[in-house]
Amino acid sequence: MNDPLAHLPWAAADNFLGLSAEDAPGFTDAGVLILPVPYETTVSYMGGTRNGPRGLIHASRYVELYDHELDTEPYEIGVHTLPELHLTRAGPEPALGQLREAMDALVATGKFVVMLGGEHSLSAAPIQAHVAALGAGKRLSVLQLDAHADLRREYEGTPYSHASVMYRVHREVDIVPVGIRSLTAEERRLMRDRKIPVIFGHELEDSTLVDRAVGALGEDVYITIDVDYFDPAIMPSTGTPEPGGGWWNPTIRLLERVFREKHVVGCDVVELAPLPGLAGPDFLAAKLVYKLIGFHARTRQPR
Amino acid sequence: MNDPLAHLPWAAADNFLGLSAEDAPGFTDAGVLILPVPYETTVSYMGGTRNGPRGLIHASRYVELYDHELDTEPYEIGVHTLPELHLTRAGPEPALGQLREAMDALVATGKFVVMLGGEHSLSAAPIQAHVAALGAGKRLSVLQLDAHADLRREYEGTPYSHASVMYRVHREVDIVPVGIRSLTAEERRLMRDRKIPVIFGHELEDSTLVDRAVGALGEDVYITIDVDYFDPAIMPSTGTPEPGGGWWNPTIRLLERVFREKHVVGCDVVELAPLPGLAGPDFLAAKLVYKLIGFHARTRQPR
Amino acid sequence: MNDPLAHLPWAAADNFLGLSAEDAPGFTDAGVLILPVPYETTVSYMGGTRNGPRGLIHASRYVELYDHELDTEPYEIGVHTLPELHLTRAGPEPALGQLREAMDALVATGKFVVMLGGEHSLSAAPIQAHVAALGAGKRLSVLQLDAHADLRREYEGTPYSHASVMYRVHREVDIVPVGIRSLTAEERRLMRDRKIPVIFGHELEDSTLVDRAVGALGEDVYITIDVDYFDPAIMPSTGTPEPGGGWWNPTIRLLERVFREKHVVGCDVVELAPLPGLAGPDFLAAKLVYKLIGFHARTRQPR
Amino acid sequence: MNDPLAHLPWAAADNFLGLSAEDAPGFTDAGVLILPVPYETTVSYMGGTRNGPRGLIHASRYVELYDHELDTEPYEIGVHTLPELHLTRAGPEPALGQLREAMDALVATGKFVVMLGGEHSLSAAPIQAHVAALGAGKRLSVLQLDAHADLRREYEGTPYSHASVMYRVHREVDIVPVGIRSLTAEERRLMRDRKIPVIFGHELEDSTLVDRAVGALGEDVYITIDVDYFDPAIMPSTGTPEPGGGWWNPTIRLLERVFREKHVVGCDVVELAPLPGLAGPDFLAAKLVYKLIGFHARTRQPR
Amino acid sequence: MNDPLAHLPWAAADNFLGLSAEDAPGFTDAGVLILPVPYETTVSYMGGTRNGPRGLIHASRYVELYDHELDTEPYEIGVHTLPELHLTRAGPEPALGQLREAMDALVATGKFVVMLGGEHSLSAAPIQAHVAALGAGKRLSVLQLDAHADLRREYEGTPYSHASVMYRVHREVDIVPVGIRSLTAEERRLMRDRKIPVIFGHELEDSTLVDRAVGALGEDVYITIDVDYFDPAIMPSTGTPEPGGGWWNPTIRLLERVFREKHVVGCDVVELAPLPGLAGPDFLAAKLVYKLIGFHARTRQPR
Amino acid sequence: MNDPLAHLPWAAADNFLGLSAEDAPGFTDAGVLILPVPYETTVSYMGGTRNGPRGLIHASRYVELYDHELDTEPYEIGVHTLPELHLTRAGPEPALGQLREAMDALVATGKFVVMLGGEHSLSAAPIQAHVAALGAGKRLSVLQLDAHADLRREYEGTPYSHASVMYRVHREVDIVPVGIRSLTAEERRLMRDRKIPVIFGHELEDSTLVDRAVGALGEDVYITIDVDYFDPAIMPSTGTPEPGGGWWNPTIRLLERVFREKHVVGCDVVELAPLPGLAGPDFLAAKLVYKLIGFHARTRQPR
Repeated sequence: MNDPLAHLPWAAADNFLGLSAEDAPGFTDAGVLILPVPYETTVSYMGGTRNGPRGLIHASRYVELYDHELDTEPYEIGVHTLPELHLTRAGPEPALGQLREAMDALVATGKFVVMLGGEHSLSAAPIQAHVAALGAGKRLSVLQLDAHADLRREYEGTPYSHASVMYRVHREVDIVPVGIRSLTAEERRLMRDRKIPVIFGHELEDSTLVDRAVGALGEDVYITIDVDYFDPAIMPSTGTPEPGGGWWNPTIRLLERVFREKHVVGCDVVELAPLPGLAGPDFLAAKLVYKLIGFHARTRQPR
Repeated sequence: MNDPLAHLPWAAADNFLGLSAEDAPGFTDAGVLILPVPYETTVSYMGGTRNGPRGLIHASRYVELYDHELDTEPYEIGVHTLPELHLTRAGPEPALGQLREAMDALVATGKFVVMLGGEHSLSAAPIQAHVAALGAGKRLSVLQLDAHADLRREYEGTPYSHASVMYRVHREVDIVPVGIRSLTAEERRLMRDRKIPVIFGHELEDSTLVDRAVGALGEDVYITIDVDYFDPAIMPSTGTPEPGGGWWNPTIRLLERVFREKHVVGCDVVELAPLPGLAGPDFLAAKLVYKLIGFHARTRQPR
Repeated sequence: MNDPLAHLPWAAADNFLGLSAEDAPGFTDAGVLILPVPYETTVSYMGGTRNGPRGLIHASRYVELYDHELDTEPYEIGVHTLPELHLTRAGPEPALGQLREAMDALVATGKFVVMLGGEHSLSAAPIQAHVAALGAGKRLSVLQLDAHADLRREYEGTPYSHASVMYRVHREVDIVPVGIRSLTAEERRLMRDRKIPVIFGHELEDSTLVDRAVGALGEDVYITIDVDYFDPAIMPSTGTPEPGGGWWNPTIRLLERVFREKHVVGCDVVELAPLPGLAGPDFLAAKLVYKLIGFHARTRQPR
Repeated sequence: MNDPLAHLPWAAADNFLGLSAEDAPGFTDAGVLILPVPYETTVSYMGGTRNGPRGLIHASRYVELYDHELDTEPYEIGVHTLPELHLTRAGPEPALGQLREAMDALVATGKFVVMLGGEHSLSAAPIQAHVAALGAGKRLSVLQLDAHADLRREYEGTPYSHASVMYRVHREVDIVPVGIRSLTAEERRLMRDRKIPVIFGHELEDSTLVDRAVGALGEDVYITIDVDYFDPAIMPSTGTPEPGGGWWNPTIRLLERVFREKHVVGCDVVELAPLPGLAGPDFLAAKLVYKLIGFHARTRQPR
Repeated sequence: MNDPLAHLPWAAADNFLGLSAEDAPGFTDAGVLILPVPYETTVSYMGGTRNGPRGLIHASRYVELYDHELDTEPYEIGVHTLPELHLTRAGPEPALGQLREAMDALVATGKFVVMLGGEHSLSAAPIQAHVAALGAGKRLSVLQLDAHADLRREYEGTPYSHASVMYRVHREVDIVPVGIRSLTAEERRLMRDRKIPVIFGHELEDSTLVDRAVGALGEDVYITIDVDYFDPAIMPSTGTPEPGGGWWNPTIRLLERVFREKHVVGCDVVELAPLPGLAGPDFLAAKLVYKLIGFHARTRQPR
Repeated sequence: MNDPLAHLPWAAADNFLGLSAEDAPGFTDAGVLILPVPYETTVSYMGGTRNGPRGLIHASRYVELYDHELDTEPYEIGVHTLPELHLTRAGPEPALGQLREAMDALVATGKFVVMLGGEHSLSAAPIQAHVAALGAGKRLSVLQLDAHADLRREYEGTPYSHASVMYRVHREVDIVPVGIRSLTAEERRLMRDRKIPVIFGHELEDSTLVDRAVGALGEDVYITIDVDYFDPAIMPSTGTPEPGGGWWNPTIRLLERVFREKHVVGCDVVELAPLPGLAGPDFLAAKLVYKLIGFHARTRQPR
């Protein structure tokens, strides 16, 4: 843009938080990277997760930069939004291969990466990238906020389904599922056999919830949040909304504890499927991501 | 269908739970019958209950067959979905006459019948059919989950209105209304005169709720659930959503207790009015019906 | 209308509660005045508050006239609905001037006025009218139910923004904000400097909430309710729905206490932006207004 | 309203055209009466005609008062909007009885009445009222713009269905149906037997259309417009949109000719079922009504 | 169902036209087979074609059985609706393999098959099945009503995309594309090289259109209709609506000529993506299918 | 982005046409500039024009780069999309001042500027910028495609309303309005007094339309397109859809002639108000802009 134009009130680019050119760092200077992956193939019931990253980022422009619970402005850690990654449509295997490649390179930077889905099958790639980055001596825990166990061997004829994502990684990591309220008899057996410390949906209001979840996690934690974890009252915008899910404030308290007591290596928020005309759920997802960034940012500060 | 086609992946018929031909028994072998009655005439505010049965059944295809709270697969009791019953439009009296005829024949089979409405005025027919089937020596209790008392003598010029359904049966049965939060002064007087043990909406969070409700019921119980009983946050898809209603988990606990301690003869779920594009409420109603079936099925099993 | 037509079932005018000509008093005889002000200029995110008054009044026709919690029919105090006030579009300053003029005249009648917005910037006019009416010897408290602090000096280049409404009046009145969960660092500083007794969103479930709020209020109270105070689960129909807000029953308990223990001079309900096809939130707002009227009406009765 | 308030910019009541108190005459002084009848019982496919009158009147506030094709301001004839007539729900026969009573009284005033439906079954009442008013010596023609013949003896078990309205009157009047593109074999036979001069949907673009229609009409004409006459491209907001319907400009030309060459005694516009968020079709229906008023008004002026 | 129930007014199954058990023949006796294939993977822009068959069949229940232009009741040929065919999600190649297998078996019955998509990539299977059935001595023409050329070698990394379907078959058949108004420079070159007799969207109103299209077709014709061929005014419910498309009546005239003068071996209607709340486009697609059946049925009758 | 990431399939930025980094030139190298101005204050009826630029640009990603009617790829002229210009909310006068400043600087570059609104009041700024750039010796013609005359002196108390935009410039330029079908008596008088060569909506199908319009224009032409010019059937997504508007192909023919025979200095497309879930109208507007660019590009090529 030329000089006589520069002083006019141009809008910021459509990045996470709608940051102006001054406030949004480049890739190199960022502390946090947002990776939008609008991938959707193995839809069930209502579709639309391919619109999730765009909807979340659009809504994020209205999230207040100041977090009054933390009393900080977490964006100051430097948040850089990557372009959308458009995975190949040649099939789930090559698509997830591309994503894994991206995640390996991003994890190698040492920055905190937040992936925005897209369908839950994507999460295998960042989880495996973090497992590889941690190395053989350490074992990654995965805090899975979700309505569904996602522990099926395969679904609709493919092992890469969103309903199988936790099965694909369950041997490599320790899964701590929270909020589960829909699973098959076979998934239930697997949970019992593997002693997976599940916290069901109807247990979400137990006062011991946070202690149980934190107690089950190891030192290094990856957090994957399928937004259908939340009660459909506050999160109708997802493919298979299951009644009896998590509410906002208790969930934020749980996440805060995990960030405070563990080493969170990365996270994702997936399965948002924006409903036209209904802004609240997109905004909730955006604020959730900013909360995750805020909790992460605090761990980098001298206390 | 001819032989070369038989092995292909054809979809199941559009029955409750989307059961395949093997899993869905015929009328004779079924333990549970689903009766969809898409009847709507005395609309108020938002209409759409005529789409309720279809929306509920459509959503039910995504309900997981395994119930992890019961640790069973309740569909094994045998669930048969009847075609929609299209009642005559010659007026509410002949229409309810047809439904009564259907209910008498269905109750006579000894199977557990779940009626899906349609508007609440329908419930008089199954209630009266069960009263008749129980015989003179027994008195039926009706557990009414509802936002409205429905105890008006008449409404909009007819005694067959959805707002009058409980008035029509209140002399023949003992009503236990739960969740009521909208009623006229006259309905309030009737409740006091008849000593109807109402539990109001603002009492839903009392810890004594379940004991009070169960204590007020007799041995034989019919359950009628007007979905506007639920809080509009989780059930916006109904004609007159009233704030301050019931939530999912406490309601399921109440229903479980009733099935455990009483003899539930039948039930209905009415007044669902699906909103285009909003799947969650339809799914909740479908899962609710499956919970009712699961609770019923357990009573048939050796404990 | 001529004689042969008079006995036919004509609908009531589109007033609050849908009152018939007999039940709806004229301006002079009314105890309560409803003032609809469909004003919207400084929109953010989703717009639509200009449709708020119409949507609320439309929904109010389905609110039951009997309030079973009060065991009265509050409309008997006499509720008169004024026409919509269409403020000039020549800018926010002259527009608010017109509204102030209207409020001065209305407050002078001694009737209880409920303003329906429209955007929150409007509330400055009734607040200032009540300050003037109270006179120098008394200080007005403002109970602000809201998700946002609205304490910005200016926003989008104007001091008359919805985001600035409390800043504009904060020197003249004592603000008690409840439910706040989005504010800038600067607004937080102002709150600390002025010792504004804020109750944040994450404190809404504290058992001391009502005592804290009531304790912070003086004798004379104006209530301004930005509907985004409520949790988006029950109030999605607003411009910037923030997760973690207030629920129906606790809010009604808070308001009841305030009316019981304080002198409430007036109130407003603003920022409702009806969503097409979604009736519940409009109905909630209408029932809220009727609750306010009911609580007010009780203060006028011999106890 | 008291004096200090009177000069403020209050909105007009929600009448047709949104006329201010000065511009909207009372019942007695009006030349044209608008009668809204939000009646809907025998729904098919999509419902919603009960919202038709409200949607049309709401949209009419944005219709320009000046008609540049006529070069007049037709509202000057005096347009008075009656309240909604809420027919009893005790069944179609008493409901239509009430409407007939209303129409008899309205026709007796000599004013030009435009009825807004509601479902098409309503039109029998104004047609029969005009037949009675014309007296034995004259025979009324009915210009029926419609996608469906509506000549069934009965439908869904009642002779009062929207699908039977023309059958009910076809012996008393001469019907000229235009735009028909859906009918049963039996209706086709009836048309042939009675030599009803039908113009089918696929003939709408014939250059002789207007001549044929005008030629088939007698001197005294009632016009009934089921909005599904129009192509669904411009009128999606109706219960059963049939492809291949009428367009705006040719239809206006046809109506203009009829008003110019015949004596139009009255008219109705029915079956509008507003779609949330889609304003165009409601506006089209409102402008159509204003065109009818404009054509009527011209016949009263010295040419 | 048992005897006392049999006489009640049960609804028909959800088949095409909503035919009752008497009117709907079994597979063997049918003259026409409807094959619904709700397959969608290579979405672009708006998705939703997986809901196409269900929406079309649902709307078809309101199509009048009598066709007044043909003066027949075409359903009498016997229309049997197959269950939905749920193709594997293991990738497009095996999925299309399954469909080809189904089509081979269906074509072998000699019945007239109408496939309902789903996305346009599906059409390759029925086209190739018909090519195989015709045998080496004959060459199939394909009348393609479409907004897009669909002649890309590959799209989004796969040769099985909806954008490539015509490229995949263009060597085996003679394509006559009508309504094309979006294509790449490369597709344009291919059209010129292969002398494909394209009729562009802006030529749809030429009076010679029908002659040109019919003249370009050989004796044996398959018709594939991508609903985005139609103008978005009448068909908004599709993935990529392109302005300037075909209208209803001229299209019906074209199809009638083709059936009259050629031997139409089969057809499909694809890419319908129902919009919630908007019934018209689904109904248009259903009526289009019934028109195709009617034209086909006439060829079987003695003239 | 660092090296290991660079080769992955990242999406293009959200520019007009969704051009990749290679295909999208910088400001300096561009031949065409797209200026999005999401400004909306003086709303009427339905709002939403502030979402117009975003919706149009989003849809443009699916516009085919090859234009088969021109047989060129017009984007090769170099299309650069500026960020959104967020005008001050301190009132229409300073807001339009900012836009004028921007337009002066942009016109000074000599590039072809396409402004995307936002409301029609914006167009005064580019028109006046071009008048200033042309200089005293030349007189600008403005081809106005519009449903409304927009010749009011003021509207809703301000001379800067969308309804006044043409009045504000009518002394400086020669207006040629096309498609007008809603205006006041006063606007009609002004048209007659000033001999403005209006072509009304009902004249759009006259064969002489293009000649009349082209004949009325001078050599230098600015084109302003209010999308409500189009028939609501193809453009429902606008504030006040008026029946009887322009269709796609004839409009494109008119614009092509104007570009071919005149010197078009710039243009704008305004008043698009995207409807959630309805993609077609946004796509039409995007394709329209690309047509304008294509026609402009051809004038720069050797013929």
